[in-house]
Amino acid sequence: MTTPLKVLGVSGSLRTGSYNRALLRAAIELMPPDMSIEEYNGIGDLPLYNPDIDVQGGPAPAVAWRTAVHAADALLIVTPEYNFGPSAALKNAIDWASRPPATSVLHAKPIALMGASTGMSGTTRAQLALRQSFVFTQSPVLSGPEVLVPYAATRFDAALRLTDAATRDFIHRHLVRFAEFARRLAPKTP
Amino acid sequence: MTTPLKVLGVSGSLRTGSYNRALLRAAIELMPPDMSIEEYNGIGDLPLYNPDIDVQGGPAPAVAWRTAVHAADALLIVTPEYNFGPSAALKNAIDWASRPPATSVLHAKPIALMGASTGMSGTTRAQLALRQSFVFTQSPVLSGPEVLVPYAATRFDAALRLTDAATRDFIHRHLVRFAEFARRLAPKTP
Amino acid sequence: MTTPLKVLGVSGSLRTGSYNRALLRAAIELMPPDMSIEEYNGIGDLPLYNPDIDVQGGPAPAVAWRTAVHAADALLIVTPEYNFGPSAALKNAIDWASRPPATSVLHAKPIALMGASTGMSGTTRAQLALRQSFVFTQSPVLSGPEVLVPYAATRFDAALRLTDAATRDFIHRHLVRFAEFARRLAPKTP
Amino acid sequence: MTTPLKVLGVSGSLRTGSYNRALLRAAIELMPPDMSIEEYNGIGDLPLYNPDIDVQGGPAPAVAWRTAVHAADALLIVTPEYNFGPSAALKNAIDWASRPPATSVLHAKPIALMGASTGMSGTTRAQLALRQSFVFTQSPVLSGPEVLVPYAATRFDAALRLTDAATRDFIHRHLVRFAEFARRLAPKTP
Repeated sequence: MTTPLKVLGVSGSLRTGSYNRALLRAAIELMPPDMSIEEYNGIGDLPLYNPDIDVQGGPAPAVAWRTAVHAADALLIVTPEYNFGPSAALKNAIDWASRPPATSVLHAKPIALMGASTGMSGTTRAQLALRQSFVFTQSPVLSGPEVLVPYAATRFDAALRLTDAATRDFIHRHLVRFAEFARRLAPKTP
Repeated sequence: MTTPLKVLGVSGSLRTGSYNRALLRAAIELMPPDMSIEEYNGIGDLPLYNPDIDVQGGPAPAVAWRTAVHAADALLIVTPEYNFGPSAALKNAIDWASRPPATSVLHAKPIALMGASTGMSGTTRAQLALRQSFVFTQSPVLSGPEVLVPYAATRFDAALRLTDAATRDFIHRHLVRFAEFARRLAPKTP
Repeated sequence: MTTPLKVLGVSGSLRTGSYNRALLRAAIELMPPDMSIEEYNGIGDLPLYNPDIDVQGGPAPAVAWRTAVHAADALLIVTPEYNFGPSAALKNAIDWASRPPATSVLHAKPIALMGASTGMSGTTRAQLALRQSFVFTQSPVLSGPEVLVPYAATRFDAALRLTDAATRDFIHRHLVRFAEFARRLAPKTP
Repeated sequence: MTTPLKVLGVSGSLRTGSYNRALLRAAIELMPPDMSIEEYNGIGDLPLYNPDIDVQGGPAPAVAWRTAVHAADALLIVTPEYNFGPSAALKNAIDWASRPPATSVLHAKPIALMGASTGMSGTTRAQLALRQSFVFTQSPVLSGPEVLVPYAATRFDAALRLTDAATRDFIHRHLVRFAEFARRLAPKTP
């Protein structure tokens, strides 16, 4: 039997009633049997990245975040779109995880993206901006079809459960593809 | 006599010894006579943007930041490049200034960009990502030639003063163009 | 009375039944009285850009294209989205117009963008890629709200006439804003 | 013994004395033993993409190009940067290869990028624009470190041979990483 792929899931929105966090929770329901997804909830505790405070291993929230990314086989990032980019909270988490470059926990870490919006975009521009960041960190990102969930209010119910069947099916298939991608690119164990 | 164009200058780096802050200070030395630049130093005080805490006008640092942007005729943004994007601190400041959309202080605000890097890029990718954000906020951004200052250690001295004559001249001309651009696009007064 | 702003309109799609050409024709119906729009139909005649054939002023289709851009006060570009970018035909037209850089007819030319798609995107990524090109050419591009026309088949009739009232109104207001933008940035006449 | 990975190499510049073609030829010299690179020289023969002429399998140059891409295990694309994007010739080749979407020869095809410029950029923006296109086509693109060759005239000799030792070594290691990446993502044979 295969050991499940250990995925760290993170939502870029800090909002309590976030559709993006709800989308991450839907992914946890919909993941294939060879995958586990642990939700990381601490990116809101990270201070704004400043090299001057990134000393002696970094502040405690950064240590915790870097440790969690390091321990995961892959990352599932669910992003809102603010000003045609990722949320500052998410960019900040990436900035912390990317340092120091020589030992970045993002290096070679397989990543999949998803995002939900209340409007028509489905976070397409934010996802493209994230892909650009992950070229720098040398993290392979699963290519399309993108998981864009526009008009979220029509796809989630009042309890923030994803009810749209087509979207549920699409996410399941995305995660199946992601498991395959991450396993193929996994570091070789000696 | 023309009233000087009132520019708010902001560096996206929180680091004390930042070349980007140094570049902003060089701009203050080099601005044309019809421009004034005030440096804003409070973006590091902003909490990570979260709609749940953006209530009753927002927390005090957000009120201060929005007020300063509103009062300025134009913005001069000096960005570092982290992970092929702007710093989280800068993205965060933009996210706060952009809300609520209907009364965003960024709407129609003329913007110029500059950036410095220790390596070869000169922050070109971060500046492109910022331009994408300012499409959303409907802020006109001065087109090229971009102010990219690569290999900063060769252009600033130990006291972080910009010493490279060609770069100084280029920045001066950028600011002259910016003054013209911002005046042409200024809101009409009744 | 104001002389109408002379706009050159170009569709990036070469297809006979293109929704993008239809969108340009809708703009011609909807333009404000202080604007004229002439449709340019020759970009399909341009050879693929190759510096080796860009000699002695360039081949005849390039001369015609550069002359038309030069004579216009502003450009209205209507783009399809192919592979998350502009069509090759449109990128090719831009490459021809941008050379030689020292005398590019695109320099300082005000530009507005629109686009239509059969799917959900409305050409948002193609428009962002075009904006990136126009940073290089130093052409000011009107900021948002973007004119994205998704699901075009529901907004145009069988004769390719734009029938959706909200879209028609939105385009009219876009052109009004464009006229204002282009006039403010027009070169000063001596 | 491993069958060599069959790579199709394409330069986006049509110019005879192109540094990008020269860079592709350097790659052919520097490839690891488990890789073969065939240079494709026909993209300049493709007409501008137009769905109206993409019928009955497409025009002959498109058939040849699609056949060559299909037969390759992976693509090595060497791009110039025109107007902060890829050349129209290269975008056109991608547009032809991407159609029809259901049977695109680019689907799941591993891709590596390189680029040379006479100036400082090294084609960074063109490469980012290409990565965006390959999200649409679902082609996995090797992440950084990017192969950016700025100031090409200092790295190639008069016969267009790459003489800079550090660049040669960097390209060799890029190709070693590419071979590993492409093999891991290769379709499973039954």
